[in-house]
Amino acid sequence: MIEDTIAAIATPSGEGGIAVIRVSGSEAVAICEKIFHAGSKKLTEVPTHTVHYGHIADPITGTRVEEALVTVMRAPRSFTKEDVVEVSCHGGFVSVRKVLDLLLDNGARLAEPGEFTKRAFLNGRIDLSQAEAVIDLIRSKSDRAFRIALKQSEGSLSKKIKELRHQLVELMAHIEVNIDYPEHDVEEMTNTFIKEKCAAALLEIDRLLTTAQQGKILREGLVTAIVGKPNVGKSSLLNTFAQEERAIVTDIAGTTRDVVEEYVNVNGIPLKLLDTAGIRETSDIVEQIGVEKSRQALADADLILLVFNGAEPLQPDELRMIEELKDRQIIAIMNKLDLPQQLEEARLIEAFGEAHVVRMSLLRQQGINDLEKAIAGIFFSGQLESSDLTYVSNSRHIQLLKQAKQSLDEAYSATEQYIPIDMVQIDIRRAWEHLGEIIGDSVSDSLIDQIFSQFCLGK
Amino acid sequence: MIEDTIAAIATPSGEGGIAVIRVSGSEAVAICEKIFHAGSKKLTEVPTHTVHYGHIADPITGTRVEEALVTVMRAPRSFTKEDVVEVSCHGGFVSVRKVLDLLLDNGARLAEPGEFTKRAFLNGRIDLSQAEAVIDLIRSKSDRAFRIALKQSEGSLSKKIKELRHQLVELMAHIEVNIDYPEHDVEEMTNTFIKEKCAAALLEIDRLLTTAQQGKILREGLVTAIVGKPNVGKSSLLNTFAQEERAIVTDIAGTTRDVVEEYVNVNGIPLKLLDTAGIRETSDIVEQIGVEKSRQALADADLILLVFNGAEPLQPDELRMIEELKDRQIIAIMNKLDLPQQLEEARLIEAFGEAHVVRMSLLRQQGINDLEKAIAGIFFSGQLESSDLTYVSNSRHIQLLKQAKQSLDEAYSATEQYIPIDMVQIDIRRAWEHLGEIIGDSVSDSLIDQIFSQFCLGK
Repeated sequence: MIEDTIAAIATPSGEGGIAVIRVSGSEAVAICEKIFHAGSKKLTEVPTHTVHYGHIADPITGTRVEEALVTVMRAPRSFTKEDVVEVSCHGGFVSVRKVLDLLLDNGARLAEPGEFTKRAFLNGRIDLSQAEAVIDLIRSKSDRAFRIALKQSEGSLSKKIKELRHQLVELMAHIEVNIDYPEHDVEEMTNTFIKEKCAAALLEIDRLLTTAQQGKILREGLVTAIVGKPNVGKSSLLNTFAQEERAIVTDIAGTTRDVVEEYVNVNGIPLKLLDTAGIRETSDIVEQIGVEKSRQALADADLILLVFNGAEPLQPDELRMIEELKDRQIIAIMNKLDLPQQLEEARLIEAFGEAHVVRMSLLRQQGINDLEKAIAGIFFSGQLESSDLTYVSNSRHIQLLKQAKQSLDEAYSATEQYIPIDMVQIDIRRAWEHLGEIIGDSVSDSLIDQIFSQFCLGK
Repeated sequence: MIEDTIAAIATPSGEGGIAVIRVSGSEAVAICEKIFHAGSKKLTEVPTHTVHYGHIADPITGTRVEEALVTVMRAPRSFTKEDVVEVSCHGGFVSVRKVLDLLLDNGARLAEPGEFTKRAFLNGRIDLSQAEAVIDLIRSKSDRAFRIALKQSEGSLSKKIKELRHQLVELMAHIEVNIDYPEHDVEEMTNTFIKEKCAAALLEIDRLLTTAQQGKILREGLVTAIVGKPNVGKSSLLNTFAQEERAIVTDIAGTTRDVVEEYVNVNGIPLKLLDTAGIRETSDIVEQIGVEKSRQALADADLILLVFNGAEPLQPDELRMIEELKDRQIIAIMNKLDLPQQLEEARLIEAFGEAHVVRMSLLRQQGINDLEKAIAGIFFSGQLESSDLTYVSNSRHIQLLKQAKQSLDEAYSATEQYIPIDMVQIDIRRAWEHLGEIIGDSVSDSLIDQIFSQFCLGK
């Protein structure tokens, strides 16, 4: 039972035109009523889904602290399925804090991160995978990632998981009957039936898992390092990306302000760029630490963009780089195509393969499409996301799908070895449970807490 | 005539639970109707001040881009007195941009900074000083600053200005009669009458101007430098402030990310702290630039907190600092009161005066109230803002009040010199005009543009 009423600032902190404080719970309207004044109007009496202009005032001192628009949405037609009140006031630091303080003084509790969405889940409005999609919607760094999250939030993945579980339940019911009435059982036929059903479910899980790599990249970004000697065009490449990106360069506040991640989009694929500017020989101790960090970043990269000056032959240290990196996921960029070419292209193709070598002139903005195609070719088999597909992008979901697959694989082999069907039943049940965890059936409270703690405040 | 419909993101950018896009203008509802879907419901037909759950979709491709809560507020009961629609969607970078893009594609124009408030002004819902208070509400860094802005936004200053102008209009009417019917004029009496009225208005203007220094400090923060030798307790002082401040430390994005201003509140007085950590002798060129910047910052400070170690005698370079800074607004802090005291307090009192020397133990958190009192004593004559007072805090208003005062002073002296009353009339009219500019009567378009361009987007 959820008994208390929670409140939190729901808009990002900072200066803006509007800030919204969200209140949810059985006392939401009554608490807001205490601090809201709009003539003789009473929030407790207004119809649901209506907006009211008035003032927020301290009920003890009577001091006006803000003017506000207050929206009342009564249960169950709300985000949490509880009574929800949204107080919209002037953006800025003082205003929202004052209003929130008053709400807390008058009976609301400060919401934990993700608690509104958690209530939507616990109250049965959405399942767990839909709830997880909500945070992906907020965090998404590209249109594609956003579309995947939106579909998931609308329940596309849940639907597939539920279908799969339904098939497994039918299968289990069938087996149950055979266990209960063994006299009716024809072992051979049952085994064949189980195998067919398992195979069908496995096919569906495999289909979902094939979207996983792409889904994960689209969700989290492709960790990308740009490497090359000075003056080969690394900065131009960055600037070219920056033009493409349409303002989704951002810094994510981690535990400290020092963690800055930069995202750019290349044809909708979000690249999470690593700063590897510092990789060079140095005797300076401080700089050496920087170089070490850069080397680590390079080791973590999913993709390395290795930039060369096409107008120069390969330099000794470039040959060394090619050797060092040849087993990594590389795209070699031959820049400065506008100048007479001297670079030994064959050497690059030999090291990395033809599909991994791109000729560009960043000066003339040539070859950008080729680079995009090369990236798409490596990570998306040439095909970017199709809008019909349901993508699995969340590591937890991927893990659970793999576990379900393993259990079904075991069930499948068991039937081949004529292992008793009540043993097979156990594997199938396990697969059914793993799938259930994706949508939040039979998950532990601590897992739920952990998932929602990743949310931002006010969601 | 305002013809077009404007749209902008109204919440601060960043990850958050909710983002709001605001649309205002005669086509606001029709434009939103094109991209909003909620079954058979039509936004153009819903009652005003109602909220509707549905989806945002591209009208051309039909692709769903977001789920949203849409609020319809019809003219004139809205922020701008125009039809206003607020689209509330998932916070984050992609979502709001997609929704905004769709609105712009379907007939809205991207609003300029402050354009919503500008429309509220142009449509006569608020006057100029009230509009200016809106940005102060958002920017305010302390409760007191917020309260002042809230009162101003509610029209407290406007009311006083209008009363003053009304008095001047009556006076001008009286003079007019005397100009038109000079045969009825008794010069001596008229002069006395004008003098009395001018004196009354001047008294009122002076009363407003006495609030100006405090108002400006409360609005903009007291520019404060913390100075002292290493290990005297500068960082402890900062940490002490940080505890007091209740989370209003923030960075203001200026033209570059490098401009970071830190605000702390000392008993409600916002201190805008300057980084003067770098003031020391150095031979390093880069560091010298830093030191130069710090020196400049120190020169700009309204208040210098000069911190000493009370457990040590004054050092030669401290004596030099005392000499250098003795004409500035200083509070000398004798820290480390918990240790046996060796500092020559008399020397500090001699240099800065008794009210400007505070004994503290930051370790034991002693003396903080004394410091607060000292600050209040210097800048607020010991008295912090009274809630009855209308504060003038805006430089533009202060300037105009001073100009009005000057014109009235001239009118007053003119009567003493028996200058013809039609000449006196000109001065009084000028004062009346200056006051009018505060509330936005007779201001130029370019001034209006300039004022609203300081706003943030979406307000």
